[in-house]
Amino acid sequence: MRHFVVIGQKATASPGFLLDDLPGTSGRLDLLLRCVRAALLVSHGVRRDTRVYLVLLGGPDAPRTVRIDGAIAEYLRPDERSMATRVQKALATPKGSAAFVALRNGFAIADGGVEVVLADLGASARYVLEESGRDVRAGSFADDCAFFVGDHLGLDEATRRAIGGATAISVGPVSVHADDAIAIVNNELDRNGSAAPV
Amino acid sequence: MRHFVVIGQKATASPGFLLDDLPGTSGRLDLLLRCVRAALLVSHGVRRDTRVYLVLLGGPDAPRTVRIDGAIAEYLRPDERSMATRVQKALATPKGSAAFVALRNGFAIADGGVEVVLADLGASARYVLEESGRDVRAGSFADDCAFFVGDHLGLDEATRRAIGGATAISVGPVSVHADDAIAIVNNELDRNGSAAPV
Repeated sequence: MRHFVVIGQKATASPGFLLDDLPGTSGRLDLLLRCVRAALLVSHGVRRDTRVYLVLLGGPDAPRTVRIDGAIAEYLRPDERSMATRVQKALATPKGSAAFVALRNGFAIADGGVEVVLADLGASARYVLEESGRDVRAGSFADDCAFFVGDHLGLDEATRRAIGGATAISVGPVSVHADDAIAIVNNELDRNGSAAPV
Repeated sequence: MRHFVVIGQKATASPGFLLDDLPGTSGRLDLLLRCVRAALLVSHGVRRDTRVYLVLLGGPDAPRTVRIDGAIAEYLRPDERSMATRVQKALATPKGSAAFVALRNGFAIADGGVEVVLADLGASARYVLEESGRDVRAGSFADDCAFFVGDHLGLDEATRRAIGGATAISVGPVSVHADDAIAIVNNELDRNGSAAPV
């Protein structure tokens, strides 16, 4: 099982953003939506062995976390606006549960941030994408793995402390967008033979 | 110099699409816009050594080709809607030139499809992304290189014939979206030492 945990330091945990201006009204949720596509979608299919967590640390309702489970996800479309609509619907769920509440079509939501994710991940081996980390091509990965990914602001100190002990991984010599980094990690895992049918 | 040539078999060559419904009204131009981001944008910067061509083969005004030159591109934002607005403005330019007409901020447009691109590329070594190709990690690339990428429909026969002689390259064992394939190619080129400052 693969997991990607994307930390949005300013990404809104409230549904009141504008689909017509995602970058300007959602705390750069657009960046996280692109990560969902890169993590879960392949040509004409969904990675059924992959889960994505969007940790939303922005706005008055934060922290909240949206989980999207490739094993049961349906009607996932790659474009940002469709993905934004799905996340907006999830965020319209009233707060009140520190455990994940299953919504329709593979989405779930919980109050809380990275600590909720860590509890949900259980024993998955933890990796964090960092420019100073070991090369993604050097060494292997656990079959049950979780990759923590920062947004355009990187990773905050509280998150770093919470995931302490994670192995730092670098995807290459150029600092790329989070969604490209996820594409590169998925490619490496695919090459290591852990690709599941889509 | 790196070049990515994305062929949109149905992507509209006319500006009359809806920003609120890109997938439904633009012949899947959304897919091509994501390729522009993956090809040109990195963390807090633009790949100055990279050009993207969007070959638009859909609609009554087709074929037309939009070129985006990283060396001089300005105000490029990563989200699909912003990118769509930029391409829409380029497409509002009246037809009438089989050579590229420079627009503002790194954009250019020409009547015509892949033949116009090939004339513009000159002597760049040609590669085509194909699942049956040689592994992107096996062997090196010319410094001046051009990668042809299909959309969700793959590459049409006319395009295949026009780019005959291109080396087929595979990015990995799983068939991924075009933007992810571009991210993987860029990563490989970055590792081979041809990364330019952004």
